[in-house]
Amino acid sequence: METKGKRVVLAQRPSGWVQRENFRVEDFVLPEPKAGETLVRNHLLSLDPYMRARMDDAPSYAAPVQIGEPMVGATVGEVLASGDRRFSPGDWVSGFLGWQTHALVKPGTPLNKVDVVRAPKSAYLSILGMTGVTAWMGLTQIRPPKSGQILVVSAASGAVGSAAGQIAKIMGAKVIGIAGGPEKCDYVVSELGFDACVNYRSPNFVKNLARATPAGVDFDFENVGGSVMEAVVARLNPFATVALCGLISQYNANRPEGLAAISTILTQRVRMEGFIVADRLDLWPRALTEIADWYSKGLLKQGRETVAQGIEAAPEAFIGLLRGDNFGKQLVGLV
Amino acid sequence: METKGKRVVLAQRPSGWVQRENFRVEDFVLPEPKAGETLVRNHLLSLDPYMRARMDDAPSYAAPVQIGEPMVGATVGEVLASGDRRFSPGDWVSGFLGWQTHALVKPGTPLNKVDVVRAPKSAYLSILGMTGVTAWMGLTQIRPPKSGQILVVSAASGAVGSAAGQIAKIMGAKVIGIAGGPEKCDYVVSELGFDACVNYRSPNFVKNLARATPAGVDFDFENVGGSVMEAVVARLNPFATVALCGLISQYNANRPEGLAAISTILTQRVRMEGFIVADRLDLWPRALTEIADWYSKGLLKQGRETVAQGIEAAPEAFIGLLRGDNFGKQLVGLV
Repeated sequence: METKGKRVVLAQRPSGWVQRENFRVEDFVLPEPKAGETLVRNHLLSLDPYMRARMDDAPSYAAPVQIGEPMVGATVGEVLASGDRRFSPGDWVSGFLGWQTHALVKPGTPLNKVDVVRAPKSAYLSILGMTGVTAWMGLTQIRPPKSGQILVVSAASGAVGSAAGQIAKIMGAKVIGIAGGPEKCDYVVSELGFDACVNYRSPNFVKNLARATPAGVDFDFENVGGSVMEAVVARLNPFATVALCGLISQYNANRPEGLAAISTILTQRVRMEGFIVADRLDLWPRALTEIADWYSKGLLKQGRETVAQGIEAAPEAFIGLLRGDNFGKQLVGLV
Repeated sequence: METKGKRVVLAQRPSGWVQRENFRVEDFVLPEPKAGETLVRNHLLSLDPYMRARMDDAPSYAAPVQIGEPMVGATVGEVLASGDRRFSPGDWVSGFLGWQTHALVKPGTPLNKVDVVRAPKSAYLSILGMTGVTAWMGLTQIRPPKSGQILVVSAASGAVGSAAGQIAKIMGAKVIGIAGGPEKCDYVVSELGFDACVNYRSPNFVKNLARATPAGVDFDFENVGGSVMEAVVARLNPFATVALCGLISQYNANRPEGLAAISTILTQRVRMEGFIVADRLDLWPRALTEIADWYSKGLLKQGRETVAQGIEAAPEAFIGLLRGDNFGKQLVGLV
């Protein structure tokens, strides 16, 4: 059995764009689990935009990662040894065990067994995990889109965006994606069944979005912010809803762009609401039940994945995610 | 009986700040009311910030005033003659009869009798009229403040702000006003019963607002926008509500400021919602019943008024309103 693990810790806080130097890879000695503790060998790590905020020492909804501490993140792995009788060696578990090959899970820390026969391991980090639940919450808990309404989702080929667009289709909405480049756009239309997709990297983006939404936009599932969001807000119909899930275009900006078109929120009587999936842990079981049902019926696909190999690759993969280099869910394979 | 009336028409559309030249005063010959029509002598005209938007030819929730047409506005007046058996000469009525001394009301145009014994005429243009109902809607129809929550209202001494703060107090909120200058601040605290008020014209405004809201802000009844709104948004607590009622600081800007702190809407999971009182005509009877009840019990005051004299004074008074020169409700006396 291995006696050492590797982890990525926060070496220094970024100023603007995240750099490789903000991270450090470290070895650590694997501890023996005591009573109530579980030692897990992580196989997959999920990389997600929210991690950028945790690198800053600014007031936010979650505590920042401390310098020298492992970066936070969701994982799927295998139990190596456990002093908790709910777990046995060989069990597959998902948890929030961070950027590390192994983790000693203390009593009281959430750890869930997952069924790797029913779905691939990675599904528990995307459609059957946090990003699927995030999409579900944004669509169901603010003001659900009505059948026939026009919904736009930005970062459409990403983990949350691809789930949001598919669930919105199940709810009866007409779904227009926004993604970076023709390949991602083709994918969300032909593989995920979106009604249309607009490439935000095109010089004709604003015009193309208007053409794709001749009857305006009733619901904006917003993941991006900045000029992408302005273009969607300019299309909002009266009484539209903006589910504010992320602002990835702004996370590395020293001078964030804000929302120029605040007056549209007033004149179109828009409801804009920010939400965070961790606020409603009470709804996760219901969300996961519905999502698993759609998934098992083939109504919902897991979506594409980009997998970086090895814990040492996590920093570059994360920087690429913030740039939009990934295609679909960004994972790191740890074995 | 008079045979001529005077009215103010839109002479040209403003570019940026409204100018006196954007308006023209005209005489017109009073028509005889035919069957179903009512001739009204307006006594009071209400001036309100929304009128600025009607001067532009931009897409908005309401049609623009056409060049050469009378400016729109709410009025209280006396029936001179009527071909509608619901009205008799001498009846007092409120309506939306525009910037004019007289109006011929066509069948189907809303016109309501008002009881000038129960309350002063001007109350039907403020607390017992549109601005009172506006305050009621923003507080009750988005996400009502809970007892003990901290509510901030900007333009606090204005017609909507003074009503919103008083109604929020009735609902149990702790109410902090924002107003321009110490005199307006003293007024909302000592006469209207707000818990505190902060002068936005002070160089220490941001610091003073923070001092007045040591436990943050749970509800922003927003009338102003720009730097005033940014200061309040920076104080918002998790799950705060922003009722977006107006953005008066931006109406004359050629380059509106937007909302720089859009990321706070996400990180604090804020619900921001724009609303317009005319959208929910179905709720007016209920709103007016509740407001009249509070008013008759002395829980709600009509608030101060600034009255300009004569229809010719309306343009200057309106420009002053947009600058914040008025104290309380801005009216024009027409007799």
